Amino acid sequence: MNRATLIKHIKQRASFLCIGLDTDISKLPKGFSKDAEGIVAFNRAIIAATQDYCVAYKPNTAFYETLGSEGWAALETTMQLIPDTHFVIADAKRGDIGNTARQYASAFFDRMHCDAVTVAPYMGQDSVAPFLSFPDKWAIVLALTSNAGAADFQYHGAPNPLFELVLQKCQQWGNPDNLMFVVGATQANALARIRQLAPDHFLLVPGVGAQGGSLSEVAQFGLNNDIGLLVNASRSIIFADSGPGFAKAAALAAQKVQQEMRNLLVHHKLL
Amino acid sequence: MNRATLIKHIKQRASFLCIGLDTDISKLPKGFSKDAEGIVAFNRAIIAATQDYCVAYKPNTAFYETLGSEGWAALETTMQLIPDTHFVIADAKRGDIGNTARQYASAFFDRMHCDAVTVAPYMGQDSVAPFLSFPDKWAIVLALTSNAGAADFQYHGAPNPLFELVLQKCQQWGNPDNLMFVVGATQANALARIRQLAPDHFLLVPGVGAQGGSLSEVAQFGLNNDIGLLVNASRSIIFADSGPGFAKAAALAAQKVQQEMRNLLVHHKLL
Repeated sequence: MNRATLIKHIKQRASFLCIGLDTDISKLPKGFSKDAEGIVAFNRAIIAATQDYCVAYKPNTAFYETLGSEGWAALETTMQLIPDTHFVIADAKRGDIGNTARQYASAFFDRMHCDAVTVAPYMGQDSVAPFLSFPDKWAIVLALTSNAGAADFQYHGAPNPLFELVLQKCQQWGNPDNLMFVVGATQANALARIRQLAPDHFLLVPGVGAQGGSLSEVAQFGLNNDIGLLVNASRSIIFADSGPGFAKAAALAAQKVQQEMRNLLVHHKLL
Repeated sequence: MNRATLIKHIKQRASFLCIGLDTDISKLPKGFSKDAEGIVAFNRAIIAATQDYCVAYKPNTAFYETLGSEGWAALETTMQLIPDTHFVIADAKRGDIGNTARQYASAFFDRMHCDAVTVAPYMGQDSVAPFLSFPDKWAIVLALTSNAGAADFQYHGAPNPLFELVLQKCQQWGNPDNLMFVVGATQANALARIRQLAPDHFLLVPGVGAQGGSLSEVAQFGLNNDIGLLVNASRSIIFADSGPGFAKAAALAAQKVQQEMRNLLVHHKLL
């Protein structure tokens, strides 16, 4: 999916919500088998319930790999269940030397038809570049993450902290049509600075919801004239309720975020 | 596999060779099907031919994921083909927030019974620690890699470059019984410094062979009193010949490295 189409979907649905399909089998509602089949059935129900309120889905590969090849098959099926009207992100955080990175890019772009893959920048240009060479496909590079461990290395090297160098260097390799950055919502105070450094790129912002980030702050500091934001919520939506009404609860949780997003888009004169 | 057993195998085989099972289907010899079945058949032949000359095997997950769930099944089968006498490394370079990293650790340790997983440090402590909590299992954290892109971020922050900070911080989280570091052989001049910073940890050194690193330099700067080195070669061994004699060629290539390793171990008074 290209940038113009993504922006079109965001405006049509008045939503920049990405739903993380972090389908932990230990949290599946009663009635679902605790296996790959259960994951697919649950994801199918969640996608059907929430698709009107979001523009993207983001399965995290870890929750599928933990079930081995059957889990991987469930990931493939899940990717197929996501409608063409939605941006599909493989949250895989891959990163390896050039010839190997090309294999990963092919796995997620050629075989699974994802629109984007999250990429870890530690190994530098030849680990990122292979994800930038597919038309209408995207690399989403980790810049400043939402977890506690972000403080260990990502601020190293002040006054030019590592995450800023990542933002700077990656923009030499990609452009706003094939490159986004991951910026944690728990770091909202850093978002203004990041918008200065990457004014035109989409930012994928996890950490709203279970991790505690504020959506209005993210919008205030993160929105640009082309919207430029995808905000992810995972557990707070897909596991909003563990009973038989789980799908309705997920829909309501997604709708609540979408309504807040509509208000923010209007407030910032983007709708 | 614990540290004492690993060292015992190294001494018995007079080898600290790790063979990278980077089984690129486009490079399979004639007669192998270019699919997951072909990968397994090839790996079986390579493991049978080379096991006397190495102490570890390291499949890189990218070459399996690129074939989807069938590739992932081939990875699982390959892990089972590796004898218990060999240290099994999943070269996956995973790294994610704590609850997700636990899923990856479970995938490779509980399900696939690997001894070790390579881990990318960008996201800090909670992304690394889950790999350190399994008895006799190992995290192998990227410190200084062998590729050109290593220069982009890993030296950032001098006089305390990022890779040195990674070595320092990770040693607060793990110990020489559950933590190794990846250090590229193409950076042999940095190995002496790395040995100062991590005197007791095993180092996994890729980049000898196709990538051009020197084994005698790696031994000179990298060996410690407990050997402390695993040196990986992939393409230069498994694809030593593309004809019908591919397995014999792989055995000879591995044996040649093993003989050089025996000489180096004797020279450094470790055998």
